[in-house]
Amino acid sequence: MREVKLFVVGLGAVGGGLMRLLADKRDVYKRRFGVDVKVSAVADSKGVWAGDDLDPSEVLRVKEEKGTVAAVGEETDPLSAMEDVDFDVLVELTPTDIETGEPGLSHVMKAIELGKHVVTANKGPLAVAYSEIMEAAEEAGVIVRYEATAGGAMPVFNLVRETLRSVDVLSLEGILNGTVNYVLTRMEEEGVTLEDALAEARNRGIAEADPSMDVEGWDTACKVVILANSILGVECTIDDVDVTGIERITPEAIEIAEERGYRIRLIGRATKDGDLVVTPALVPKSDPLSRVKGTMNLLRLGTDVAGDILVSGRGAGPLETASAVMSDVLAIAEGISGLERRHPA
Amino acid sequence: MREVKLFVVGLGAVGGGLMRLLADKRDVYKRRFGVDVKVSAVADSKGVWAGDDLDPSEVLRVKEEKGTVAAVGEETDPLSAMEDVDFDVLVELTPTDIETGEPGLSHVMKAIELGKHVVTANKGPLAVAYSEIMEAAEEAGVIVRYEATAGGAMPVFNLVRETLRSVDVLSLEGILNGTVNYVLTRMEEEGVTLEDALAEARNRGIAEADPSMDVEGWDTACKVVILANSILGVECTIDDVDVTGIERITPEAIEIAEERGYRIRLIGRATKDGDLVVTPALVPKSDPLSRVKGTMNLLRLGTDVAGDILVSGRGAGPLETASAVMSDVLAIAEGISGLERRHPA
Repeated sequence: MREVKLFVVGLGAVGGGLMRLLADKRDVYKRRFGVDVKVSAVADSKGVWAGDDLDPSEVLRVKEEKGTVAAVGEETDPLSAMEDVDFDVLVELTPTDIETGEPGLSHVMKAIELGKHVVTANKGPLAVAYSEIMEAAEEAGVIVRYEATAGGAMPVFNLVRETLRSVDVLSLEGILNGTVNYVLTRMEEEGVTLEDALAEARNRGIAEADPSMDVEGWDTACKVVILANSILGVECTIDDVDVTGIERITPEAIEIAEERGYRIRLIGRATKDGDLVVTPALVPKSDPLSRVKGTMNLLRLGTDVAGDILVSGRGAGPLETASAVMSDVLAIAEGISGLERRHPA
Repeated sequence: MREVKLFVVGLGAVGGGLMRLLADKRDVYKRRFGVDVKVSAVADSKGVWAGDDLDPSEVLRVKEEKGTVAAVGEETDPLSAMEDVDFDVLVELTPTDIETGEPGLSHVMKAIELGKHVVTANKGPLAVAYSEIMEAAEEAGVIVRYEATAGGAMPVFNLVRETLRSVDVLSLEGILNGTVNYVLTRMEEEGVTLEDALAEARNRGIAEADPSMDVEGWDTACKVVILANSILGVECTIDDVDVTGIERITPEAIEIAEERGYRIRLIGRATKDGDLVVTPALVPKSDPLSRVKGTMNLLRLGTDVAGDILVSGRGAGPLETASAVMSDVLAIAEGISGLERRHPA
C-alpha cells in the first residue's frame, strides 16, 4: 500500500474539516485507491505537533480542548519543523493575506525547496506570486495543487486540466464569493439593506466578522487571478485586476434592476487577452449566472470547440472545502491519474 | 515526441467533427502535451482506409466527394482490418443500437482482445455490456474511456474520476437529452404540440428523422445506465431502467404545471441503491433542472461531503462531442495524468 504523509499547516475551519474527513474516510481511500493518507504533523499559529501517524480525531480533540496543538507538540515554527519532519505533501491552510501572501507563501516556497508537493486552500500565495510558485515547483519537480482556492467544493482547475484537454478555454466568468451572493440574494428577496443582509449573514456564520475582503470584491479578485493564471495562461497578480465591490449597491438599485428583467450579481471575469475584472453587473434573468442563489458558486467557461461549460457547487463550508483539498492530495498520492481507479464503489 | 495512432470507426457527424478537430488542433496538441495524434485508419459502413499517417482533411474530402472512404481504401470489415493495422486506440463512433450494442460492441471487444485502448462515443456497447467490457479491459490491461456517451461536451465521467476523488457520489439526476429538452422548451414557450415542436426540431437538425429513441426516453436510459455503472458502481444494463418517455405530454399539461410553479422535464435518475428511472417530472421553477433550456444538458451529483455539484454543457453537436472524444484520446496518450500539463496556453 502506498503511503502519503501530510504536513498540515492551519487548523481553522478547513483544517478541522480535513481532520474530520480523514477520520471518517481514511479506510475508504485505502480501499479505493490503495493509498494510506497519514498525518505526520499539524501546525496552528502557536506551534507544531509532529508524530509518526497522528490520529485526526485526537488532533481535533486537542485543538478543541487546549486551543492549540502546541499544548502537546512544540512551540515552534512550521518552517523549521518542515526540515525535521518526514512528509510528502504540505497542506497549506493558513488565512489568506492578499498583500504579502504570508505566512502561506513562505510555507509553500519552503516545501518546494525541500522537494515536497503542495496542496493549498490559501488564495494569498497564488494571488501574489502564482508564476514564481509554479516556476519553483517545475524546477524542483514537485506538484502544486490548489483546487480549493476557487469555489470550495466546485471543481474548476482539475476539471479543466483533466477533462477538457482537447479544448481551449478562451474566457471565464462566474460567481465566486458565496458571502456576497448570499447578501445580494437576501437584499433581492427581502428588500433589506446591505448592512442588514450582512448582519444576517454574520449571524448565520456565512460572513466573517470583517467581511470587507468579500464585500469589496478582493476575495473574488484573488480567485480571478488564480483562474486566469491556471486556466487561461495569463500571467498576472492581484494588482492587475480592476476591482469594484458591492458597497454601493442599494435595495433600490436591486429593485429597479428587477423591474427591468435583471439581477445584480458580483461577477469575476477574465479573458485570454488579460482583461481581469470584478464588478457588480446587471445579469439578465435568463442567464444562469442570475439564478445562482445563496452561497452557491458558478463558473462559466467559454471554449473554442465545446461551447460553454458551466459548473456549480458549494463555494464554502469546512467539509466541502476540505473535500477539494483531499481530492488534490489523492491525485498527488496516486502519482498517476485516476486511470488507475477501476472500481467506483 | 510521443505518438498515438488512432483507428477511427464511424465517420458520421461525430467522426467528421473529430477529423475537423484534428485538422485544426493537431499542432496545438503536439505543443501542449508533446503528443502527436495520428490517424492510422478510418472506417465507415462500406470499408476501411488505412495508411501510415492519414490527413484528416483528406479523409473529410474523400468522404464528402465519394460518399465512402472505401473509394480509396478497401471494401473490408474493421474487425479484420484491426488485426493488420498498427494502432494504439480504437475510436468507436458507429451508431447506437440498444438491443445488441452492435456493431460497436464487437469493435470494442476486438480492440480489447488485441490489447488496444478504446475511446467511444457510442452508447450501445456500454448500455448492454458495461461490466463485460470493463472486465475484459482490466484483464487485458487497457483503458476504455467514454466521456462523450453522456452529455456530449459536458464533462461527467472524467469529472468524477479525476476531480472528485475524495467524495462519494450517492445519487445523480439530470437532463441528458437535448432533443427532448428542446421540444419541451418549445412546447412551454410557444404552446405548440409535441408533433409540431418535433417537426421544428427536425427542421433545425436537432432531432433525427426517427426521434423515437429520444422521445420514448431510451437515449436518456442509456446514459443513466452508463452513469450508474461508472459513477455509482451499480452493475446494470438498459433492461434495469424504468423508462417513461414524453409521448403523452400535452401543451395543456405543461400549462397547468406552469401555473402551479413547475416545469415538465425529462429526468434521468440513479441512486447507489440501484434505483434507475427515466421519467417526465414536475420540477419546481426554483430548481436549476427546470432552467435548462434548449439543447443544453445538466447533471446534478449528490455527494456525501461536498454537497451538490452541478455541471452543464452542450449535450450534442459534432465538434462538441468530438472534443470529448479527443480529451479521452489525449488522456490515454499522456499515459499519466494531466499533472504533466504545466502550460495552459
